[in-house]
Amino acid sequence: MDNVKVIIWGLGAMGSGMAKMILQKEGMDIVGAIASRPEKNGKDLGEVIDLGQKCGVLISCDEDKVLNAKADIVLLATSSFTKDVFPQIEKIIGSGKNVITIAEEMAYPFYSEPTLSKKLDMLAKEHNVTILGTGINPGFVLDTLIIALTGACMDVKKITGRRVNDLSPFGTTVMKTQGVGTTVEEFENGLKNGNIVGHIGFNESIAMISSALGFEIDEIEQTRKPIISKVFRETPYVKVEPGMVAGCYHTAIGKLKGEPIIVLEHPQQIHPGLENVETGDYIIIEGMPNINLAIKPEIPGGVGTIALAVNMIPQVIAAKPGLTTMKDLPVPAALMSDIRKLAHWGCF
Amino acid sequence: MDNVKVIIWGLGAMGSGMAKMILQKEGMDIVGAIASRPEKNGKDLGEVIDLGQKCGVLISCDEDKVLNAKADIVLLATSSFTKDVFPQIEKIIGSGKNVITIAEEMAYPFYSEPTLSKKLDMLAKEHNVTILGTGINPGFVLDTLIIALTGACMDVKKITGRRVNDLSPFGTTVMKTQGVGTTVEEFENGLKNGNIVGHIGFNESIAMISSALGFEIDEIEQTRKPIISKVFRETPYVKVEPGMVAGCYHTAIGKLKGEPIIVLEHPQQIHPGLENVETGDYIIIEGMPNINLAIKPEIPGGVGTIALAVNMIPQVIAAKPGLTTMKDLPVPAALMSDIRKLAHWGCF
Repeated sequence: MDNVKVIIWGLGAMGSGMAKMILQKEGMDIVGAIASRPEKNGKDLGEVIDLGQKCGVLISCDEDKVLNAKADIVLLATSSFTKDVFPQIEKIIGSGKNVITIAEEMAYPFYSEPTLSKKLDMLAKEHNVTILGTGINPGFVLDTLIIALTGACMDVKKITGRRVNDLSPFGTTVMKTQGVGTTVEEFENGLKNGNIVGHIGFNESIAMISSALGFEIDEIEQTRKPIISKVFRETPYVKVEPGMVAGCYHTAIGKLKGEPIIVLEHPQQIHPGLENVETGDYIIIEGMPNINLAIKPEIPGGVGTIALAVNMIPQVIAAKPGLTTMKDLPVPAALMSDIRKLAHWGCF
Repeated sequence: MDNVKVIIWGLGAMGSGMAKMILQKEGMDIVGAIASRPEKNGKDLGEVIDLGQKCGVLISCDEDKVLNAKADIVLLATSSFTKDVFPQIEKIIGSGKNVITIAEEMAYPFYSEPTLSKKLDMLAKEHNVTILGTGINPGFVLDTLIIALTGACMDVKKITGRRVNDLSPFGTTVMKTQGVGTTVEEFENGLKNGNIVGHIGFNESIAMISSALGFEIDEIEQTRKPIISKVFRETPYVKVEPGMVAGCYHTAIGKLKGEPIIVLEHPQQIHPGLENVETGDYIIIEGMPNINLAIKPEIPGGVGTIALAVNMIPQVIAAKPGLTTMKDLPVPAALMSDIRKLAHWGCF
């Protein structure tokens, strides 16, 4: 039986992490790697992802050339938005390969991009391949996990999810898009001009939950508020004086006839512990029965996203053709043996 | 579009609960109800399940007659063991209907009953129907939920699951099978003669997790220990003096080359709060990353089992034919709208 052949498209922190994870697993080969930055062109993948050794795969900036190779699936880690990954996915599908992308909007693209979603679904069916968007959030903590928990409920009145995390490990890009280190005025201006965005994925998570349970949400209301620090906080990339902004408290509320029925909160800041804020993933379901879940600390975003993208490979290869979502596939599972032994998936 | 037609087989607490839940949902009709107790024969289902009114479905003890009716699926709540439900499932399949059963062993029957499992799978495929075993545990808390969480892991070293619950609401049967109210000597004798059994489902949960992740477990070791009370505990059905047994601490360990890799614990007792034991569902995954989950209090067993059996109806109807398990189907979701609107399942 042949190894599963994978192409990685996008070699930032996420794509590099996926490549490393795949190289540690049995039964999978990386047969191509596509980068956007020309300085990576022609280099060995192993060296670029800090593997400490060459792995024999040369990175290319020519996606058409790489996609010419025979492969089962492409892992796509290039952008957050459906409209940006659409032409890339079109090319991948055209070459007859399945796709897993971590583009946040692709976790449930039907809400924000119904037309593009329909096109992707049709194209995938035409070429007999499957497309999945996944990641830790959207894709798992504030949608798939919530949906699964409601499966143990006879009735659901209201869902509250809260992901409290620590931005301290992240670099300057994240500090800027979350408004860390700004004054309150700069934060408000950043929201207005679109430089401060908070979390991407709330529409997708709420729409996915609604669709799975059959709630007919009327509107989704999002608010972004500055987390104003009472104390001095500092990382290698940013300093926050008391009174300045340590992060963005982003909330989304899905309403049914004016009533908040799905409330998702994602306060993201540096060093939350300095003000005794405990990080974690929290889910409260009010219904029959009530369910009160806490994961402390939160499942880390980077590692979780990398793992989900790689661990979903067997499910996606086994799935029927089309544009699918995490709620429509079997649950993810850590790949702990040769992927080709997973005969119970019936996929190879 | 026709309503989904359901038959309930088994009208104990679980089957009655499923019937009640279905009668509250849109798009589903109960078209038959099978009881084993002759005193229920000919009575209206609504009266027997304490609905407060008739529902127009007459209970019958003649399963062949009831199974003659046209229906999409049978919910089977009669026994815990595969060998006991096998002939019942055979009849259901023979009549061309899908099956969801809460028989604990059927949550993953391949481990304890490989031959019967193969037969059921073949029969289901022959008759183009699907069989699923589910329930809160086995079926969800200590298997499906664990598997889903490992999906966010790049590596898994060890899994520990603990379900700490309160047996106080249960009646005499449960008190006896868990050894509540016995002396330590009576408890040990009960274990030997098979009257005290503890939890049914550990083999199934461990085998399901192992199969999903690709662990090749060498052996499963189970131990049952008396929970000896330090204080007086009492329910309407049993009295426990200090020094007597308040419940059964049942543990199962799945080993890989002698190392414990999946450890599941299920201490079940009356009034755990009297000795400051907090009830809850706890999952600890040691790996990359570590995941530390707590659901407090535990998801209640009865309601959870009823809900899972009913909520999985669309997934089972949509699934490909054969004997399937919770890890092979899309996640459960609370049925909160007309089941026939769930067009995204592609099932009707």
